[in-house]
Amino acid sequence: MSAPDPVVGDLSEGEILARILGRLAPSHALLGPGDDAAVLAAPGGRIVASVDTLVHGPDFRLAWSSAADLGWKAAAVNLADIAAMGARPTALLVALAMPDDTPVAFVEGLADGLRAGCDALAPGAAVEGGDLTVSDTLTIAVTALGVLEGSAAVTRSGARPGDVVAVCGELGQAARGLAILFDRFRVDGRPVPVTALTDADAALVSAQLRPHPPIAAGVVAAAHGATAMMDVSDGLSLDASRLARASGVTVALRSDALGADPDAALTGGEDHALLATFPAAAGPAPGFRVIGTVVARGDHSLLVDGGPFDGRGGWDPYRDWDAVSG
Amino acid sequence: MSAPDPVVGDLSEGEILARILGRLAPSHALLGPGDDAAVLAAPGGRIVASVDTLVHGPDFRLAWSSAADLGWKAAAVNLADIAAMGARPTALLVALAMPDDTPVAFVEGLADGLRAGCDALAPGAAVEGGDLTVSDTLTIAVTALGVLEGSAAVTRSGARPGDVVAVCGELGQAARGLAILFDRFRVDGRPVPVTALTDADAALVSAQLRPHPPIAAGVVAAAHGATAMMDVSDGLSLDASRLARASGVTVALRSDALGADPDAALTGGEDHALLATFPAAAGPAPGFRVIGTVVARGDHSLLVDGGPFDGRGGWDPYRDWDAVSG
Repeated sequence: MSAPDPVVGDLSEGEILARILGRLAPSHALLGPGDDAAVLAAPGGRIVASVDTLVHGPDFRLAWSSAADLGWKAAAVNLADIAAMGARPTALLVALAMPDDTPVAFVEGLADGLRAGCDALAPGAAVEGGDLTVSDTLTIAVTALGVLEGSAAVTRSGARPGDVVAVCGELGQAARGLAILFDRFRVDGRPVPVTALTDADAALVSAQLRPHPPIAAGVVAAAHGATAMMDVSDGLSLDASRLARASGVTVALRSDALGADPDAALTGGEDHALLATFPAAAGPAPGFRVIGTVVARGDHSLLVDGGPFDGRGGWDPYRDWDAVSG
Repeated sequence: MSAPDPVVGDLSEGEILARILGRLAPSHALLGPGDDAAVLAAPGGRIVASVDTLVHGPDFRLAWSSAADLGWKAAAVNLADIAAMGARPTALLVALAMPDDTPVAFVEGLADGLRAGCDALAPGAAVEGGDLTVSDTLTIAVTALGVLEGSAAVTRSGARPGDVVAVCGELGQAARGLAILFDRFRVDGRPVPVTALTDADAALVSAQLRPHPPIAAGVVAAAHGATAMMDVSDGLSLDASRLARASGVTVALRSDALGADPDAALTGGEDHALLATFPAAAGPAPGFRVIGTVVARGDHSLLVDGGPFDGRGGWDPYRDWDAVSG
């Protein structure tokens, strides 16, 4: 018999760390992993920083996501927050809390996924630090850092009446993929591995498990004069309402600009598209498509086809998914 | 009957966030909480960044730590990593993953503790962003960011033979406090609340639950010309060995400089004292006390009183504490 595959409880923290560091991209930082903290360049004297967490159970199921999928997604969703400020992501810090019986191969796959996500979505960004600890619940908290390249940060609060509302990236695909997983790949409520899918359905499931937010479009939008921007993590209807409230305006969307399934586009979270507003004279930045206009603040922060939108209000981690791990 | 105290599952993410933001210090950032990411000043074009996680079970017990204790400790241990680079901490990002049945009052207490820890240890640093999610395991992942004020970052690898080895802050107190908790405040292996303690024992327990690392001393050490520095999180023997290996030298400590309980000082973690080396001509920075010297690399990375140290090798989250929550 061969020895069982090693688990993290068999190794010291230093040994696990060595496995991870060997798989990451070379550091781009002034000082990368290995000391008490990383030292990062912040040209222009400003840095953009955000943190987001993936928790086993509420946020992912190991029956559906490979370790590399999880690493990719952890990178993607955090890179998107930096892009949504009009910044270029430069570094991730990864705090990984794992049960002792987590296979070492899982940790290596996660590192591969983090690297692949950065390389594909934000070339030049790399994991520059992190933390390992033990937990009963597998948890991946990622801090993303980025730099503003001359532009001001693009907040949620700058939309003005007359601006066009535009989006870059997918809307509703990740939620449709999640619905496929919940509808077809559970037995007695427990997740089971994904098997045969049509190409179309596989693309939707991939949008959920390995999202491709348009990271580079954030800097493009800022340079083009975006007045407001955010990433669509919780569904367009909820996030557009947030942008409208932050800006003191109403966002008026046209459902015929929202693709083949406007309801999925409005209510589905986790695609991490970029939602932005631009002065009408400038029009949308390259790569963005117009989906509506900004109007003066009315009775509702969001209008769809001229009326209030009464669909589901978007994603809330305290309400959605369920508590079944697996 | 009065209504039961609310738990986080009763509230939306936005409602919980509002409770937290109302208790934090005013933002010092260019852009504080509320957008996709914070925007932080990085004068000099460099920023120092680190992340560390506290997990219920391996890292703390709710029978022993109040919410405010946990917030304080989460701030303190992360601020120490920034100080250990010779930097001034400016911002924390807090990723909080909590069970649905966590009392809202706990979250508020945690916010109070984060604020109190920053205010006491690193005035000017504040929570500038974060993330809330659901988890079966209460987890607090904190990213700390800081700025270098003219000095170069002080790494672990710059110690040179002839330097003095010095420390600022307590050694072994937190571990002695932990021993009191484990020895006296468990029933059938489960933690129970801390009751009557002598003043001396209360100080040791407080060192474990609300550590006071000397954050401001980091910048002082850098300005004084520290050649290497790190925070002592895992015990002096282990951390001094790490510094020695990173620098390619041997660190020679004198046990008579390590206080009343040299073994606790050498092996006890979690005080987050600052360990630094300084050129002999400069001597230790104000607030630091000499505990040894740097010598040429020999057979051992660490010597105590001229011989190898064969005590316990320090803290490893994959080996220490036990898995009993409570």
